[in-house]
Amino acid sequence: MSIQGLNYIGYSTSAKGSESFQAFSTVSNSYLPGDFTYATTDELAAAVSLAATAFHAYKEVSAESKAVFLEAIAEEIMALGDALIGRCVAESALPVGRITGERGRTCNQLKLFAQLLRDGWWVDARIDTAQPDRQPVPKPDIRRMYIPIGPIAVFGASNFPLAFSTAGGDTASALAAGCPVIVKAHPSHPGTNELISKAIIKAAKDTGMPEGVFSSVYLTNEQSIELVQHPAIKAVGFTGSRHVGMLLHKAAAERQEPIPVYAEMSSTNPFILMEGALSTQASKIAKELTASVNLGAGQFCTNPGLVFAIDSDATQSFLKEFASQFQAATPATMLNKNICQSYTNGVSTLQAADGVSLLSKAITDVSADKYEGQPVAFTVNAQTFSVNTELSHEVFGPSTLVVVCKNEAELHQALESLEGQLTATVHATSEDAAALRPIINIITQKAGRIIYGGYPTGVEVCHSMHHGGPFPSTSDARYTSVGTAAIYRFVRPVALQDFPDHLLPEALQNANPLNILRLVNGEWTTKAIA
Amino acid sequence: MSIQGLNYIGYSTSAKGSESFQAFSTVSNSYLPGDFTYATTDELAAAVSLAATAFHAYKEVSAESKAVFLEAIAEEIMALGDALIGRCVAESALPVGRITGERGRTCNQLKLFAQLLRDGWWVDARIDTAQPDRQPVPKPDIRRMYIPIGPIAVFGASNFPLAFSTAGGDTASALAAGCPVIVKAHPSHPGTNELISKAIIKAAKDTGMPEGVFSSVYLTNEQSIELVQHPAIKAVGFTGSRHVGMLLHKAAAERQEPIPVYAEMSSTNPFILMEGALSTQASKIAKELTASVNLGAGQFCTNPGLVFAIDSDATQSFLKEFASQFQAATPATMLNKNICQSYTNGVSTLQAADGVSLLSKAITDVSADKYEGQPVAFTVNAQTFSVNTELSHEVFGPSTLVVVCKNEAELHQALESLEGQLTATVHATSEDAAALRPIINIITQKAGRIIYGGYPTGVEVCHSMHHGGPFPSTSDARYTSVGTAAIYRFVRPVALQDFPDHLLPEALQNANPLNILRLVNGEWTTKAIA
Repeated sequence: MSIQGLNYIGYSTSAKGSESFQAFSTVSNSYLPGDFTYATTDELAAAVSLAATAFHAYKEVSAESKAVFLEAIAEEIMALGDALIGRCVAESALPVGRITGERGRTCNQLKLFAQLLRDGWWVDARIDTAQPDRQPVPKPDIRRMYIPIGPIAVFGASNFPLAFSTAGGDTASALAAGCPVIVKAHPSHPGTNELISKAIIKAAKDTGMPEGVFSSVYLTNEQSIELVQHPAIKAVGFTGSRHVGMLLHKAAAERQEPIPVYAEMSSTNPFILMEGALSTQASKIAKELTASVNLGAGQFCTNPGLVFAIDSDATQSFLKEFASQFQAATPATMLNKNICQSYTNGVSTLQAADGVSLLSKAITDVSADKYEGQPVAFTVNAQTFSVNTELSHEVFGPSTLVVVCKNEAELHQALESLEGQLTATVHATSEDAAALRPIINIITQKAGRIIYGGYPTGVEVCHSMHHGGPFPSTSDARYTSVGTAAIYRFVRPVALQDFPDHLLPEALQNANPLNILRLVNGEWTTKAIA
Repeated sequence: MSIQGLNYIGYSTSAKGSESFQAFSTVSNSYLPGDFTYATTDELAAAVSLAATAFHAYKEVSAESKAVFLEAIAEEIMALGDALIGRCVAESALPVGRITGERGRTCNQLKLFAQLLRDGWWVDARIDTAQPDRQPVPKPDIRRMYIPIGPIAVFGASNFPLAFSTAGGDTASALAAGCPVIVKAHPSHPGTNELISKAIIKAAKDTGMPEGVFSSVYLTNEQSIELVQHPAIKAVGFTGSRHVGMLLHKAAAERQEPIPVYAEMSSTNPFILMEGALSTQASKIAKELTASVNLGAGQFCTNPGLVFAIDSDATQSFLKEFASQFQAATPATMLNKNICQSYTNGVSTLQAADGVSLLSKAITDVSADKYEGQPVAFTVNAQTFSVNTELSHEVFGPSTLVVVCKNEAELHQALESLEGQLTATVHATSEDAAALRPIINIITQKAGRIIYGGYPTGVEVCHSMHHGGPFPSTSDARYTSVGTAAIYRFVRPVALQDFPDHLLPEALQNANPLNILRLVNGEWTTKAIA
């Protein structure tokens, strides 16, 4: 399968632009085959226009047909076979095992949304029946459900080239909601994007979806802003840096019509070690935390970048164990040149900061031509941490900073000083019960997911997952980008008043033909309405 | 009960500022007793600071205690008796019957949220239990529910001095969610605000709520922006004009931390008359539509300001009936001087617009010293309407514009040209079936609530109500400001991973002590987890 570098605009391919770029592999320290042509303004406009037209048809497509479409995408992705794995590994520098696993996750996400569409309850049907004789005024019949909002712009992430990119969670949830998608292809894995785009387009054609339900374009930074500001775009999904996320947020705020921007940006994922846990599980935690910090060369949005503990003998023992584990960590090649350079800069800044000490680093040296990230752990005392807000900023890569507190008050203050987070983790035993309550209280205000006794890396895709936290971890803490609830980012409610039954959507009809759970006059039931 | 004009800052009253204003009654054409002192910057800061502190305690208050608090507010409002009705009528120029009814609605809203808290299911509990043996990685236990976000700024509306103001839907839903509220008192009914604030404060004290759970302050325009931009404020509820709503939206967008702004702004509420309905119910609709346009001097956000019909004999007959009904309409005093002046200007602009003809106006003349709004109906043809976007803007008051279309294509085009709406209404009979589908399709994309055969004025407070539509009718079409779903504006989800049962909130505990419906491993159930 040769890589062509074309934009996928509805069911056409197109490359009218004069500027192109190549994918660079940090694994082989070389450019990969394929010239990827940036879309022209006309090509971008054509993609948006096709999406707007497709929306009229796509929103009427049945839940079953949309489910078949999502499943077909999963099948076509699997049918890409080793070509996809090979290209994706070359472009991301992530190991074959990881990419194979991520492909499975990506396909499972698509299937999970297919199942959600078949289950049907997600439309949150609510019905209040009429009371024509009510005094002083009759009560009308009101029925409410979610409907899709329109074309969605998706900006994928470099660190999950499959699961958070072209056919990732944003695309899957938007398509499930009934919204066409325009993907701004990530320049770090354009070949992967091309293969996945082909799979989606083939699935769309084979299952009879309207042209424009999916497009994928290569865009410059300026064009990315244009896409966000296009009047036909109704929401934006983004995973990446705080800087770019806030650019997109501001671009959307300047529109005449405000639209939601779901930007997942930066998080340091505080990891709190209580005395009970340190006294009994220091070795285990030292080993597992080292693995969590270094997983995928530390390139996880949920990477535990800040560790907190109150100083004690147990804490000092833990730090020795942790230092020794970190020495044994293996440097790994990072996703791309920029990320590697940013990581090196971030580590240098930490190292040079007043009061920050090196705890440990991997003994194995990094080699510059392999674009490896050096596993490194620092320590700082809580007082110093509290006066230098830079220390709480995300350093994307395999580093962590251990904040050592003198007492509970310092620990509380340090946690209170944090910005919003995707996750917070606490390790404790029953002996920590009294000290734990206020800490859980603080971190629940700071984060979208609280983990007890585990590790934040690894985000389960399920109904109850919430992957989204207060700013700056995301731009909208009300919504998740992982799990089935991600679909709610791309819908809005509509209420239908006094509609004849035959004009109602099935989800709201008296007979409840979809057999879904509905809130009828204040009671949740699957019963038909008499 | 004498009016004191003080700011209510937590459990204190305060008036340290040097600037004050009086309430003006358009009914009596005179100023009413009471000097209302604008809060100082320090007073505003104190209110926000108290709210932030109160949040820590208030979010831990049980659902039952919050329900008792909301019910106590309703009781205290009723206990204000005729003093409230009298002052509110004087300040709003709305009739005693209307204000008495609105008081009932306001109290019922508070009680409905109390019931929602006792029902408990609104937290949307979702649980996926662990699978420790899953391959390739164990599945963790994840449990998700909604939690409150923090202090909320509420900007009430002049046209619903009770139901959309100090103790209105925004305040009731925020308090129910577990969020403290700071009300920016509306200058059009400051005395009403004072009485209601006293009632809320008394209820808060009597039910043991933390100080700062509610404050009410008089603010200048600049201070209103300060309130929205205060870092401790986590969301804004607003009902009013598009101009002011967008100022608040922009102020929030300039914050370092973006926050949700729920601004309900402007809507012309298209009202579509199909041939079948016109042929059979012209007189009835002419009479009822006239009443709907003139209800409360046309000062409803859901006022039908645009009427659409395809030209026919039936349409011409309807227009004659409608003109005659409008002649018999009675001018009513408007809420305040500004609204009366804006209405007069809006009507003049319509009257002067090319192609717009006067259809009818009330025979009874308006008197300037009564600040009355003249009931008036205009007509325009669809072609003219399509080229002059000003004609589709809201004119707040008892006027409406009938857009006469040549054919279905013109009708579709006119509807497609509309901005987002709170409501859209269609009157049809079974004979209109074929023509109706595409119209319902178009207006469902434009509006948050679609009414079949009724009138948009009158918004039922219930679970299934959606009062919120695409921009510019609101700034966030995903949320409603009326009905129990309004609570979702002031919460965000949090996921708890692998928590010991005793550390979980009751809503997520294995035994399901609240006996609420939960999504457990993909099935909705009230069963306990084994």
